[in-house]
Amino acid sequence: MSSCIFCKIIKGEIPSMKLFESEKTLAFLDIMPLSKGHSLIIPKHHGGRLTDIPDDQLVEILSVVKRIATASGAENYNILQNNGRLAHQVVDHVHFHMIPKPNETEGLGIGWPTSNPDKGELQTLLEDMKAKM
Amino acid sequence: MSSCIFCKIIKGEIPSMKLFESEKTLAFLDIMPLSKGHSLIIPKHHGGRLTDIPDDQLVEILSVVKRIATASGAENYNILQNNGRLAHQVVDHVHFHMIPKPNETEGLGIGWPTSNPDKGELQTLLEDMKAKM
Ligand SMILES: [Zn+2]
Ligand SMILES: [Zn+2]
Repeated sequence: MSSCIFCKIIKGEIPSMKLFESEKTLAFLDIMPLSKGHSLIIPKHHGGRLTDIPDDQLVEILSVVKRIATASGAENYNILQNNGRLAHQVVDHVHFHMIPKPNETEGLGIGWPTSNPDKGELQTLLEDMKAKM
Repeated sequence: MSSCIFCKIIKGEIPSMKLFESEKTLAFLDIMPLSKGHSLIIPKHHGGRLTDIPDDQLVEILSVVKRIATASGAENYNILQNNGRLAHQVVDHVHFHMIPKPNETEGLGIGWPTSNPDKGELQTLLEDMKAKM
């Protein structure tokens, strides 16, 4: 993907503040952080959504996320991966955010509009989803 | 952890709307969903924060997340894993949310309070974090 900014970072065509690199994974500081230590962990395999990335390109990701969370020293932190514009995705190359949450104002803001569907509705959904897996 | 609600679900002591189960991983519908299809994917290994879970207990997680995202039919969706009360974690057993984002009002609400630190500050942080990895 010649126009993808993260593919350019992977190729070294754009500089990045690199924290970790292996054959399949790259991690670097977010330069517009929500909090100190906000980092991005990405598969080198290009794909827009998580479901576009082959499983074998993802096995190392959470191990790297852990190492970076530890290195940040954060006690509280969010791991977030957005898919699609409506879901707040800006760059169309899968990336995991590791965002320290040091206090109420810095870090990820979360809105949690729960609903309370009835049991029958959930049971129907469950059968429907299981049939598609 | 005898008092952990997710460990009880794993043991079958509390019922759940189970979508997937393997040796290391369990997935089920969230019964207080933010949107239709909101699911939880958990390692069976008990641990409060992501950094408490051994790498070998995490390798399958993202593959299961992918399968559930696909089964939900969601076009837009967020993957979220919270660590600590400040970061909106309620149950102290690591869990990944797969939350479809069908429209502006349903699904995860996201606040994004970016900052703009100078290059020198980021460079110092980078060296500090690299030394701790
Ligand atoms: Zn790319
Ligand atoms: Zn537990």
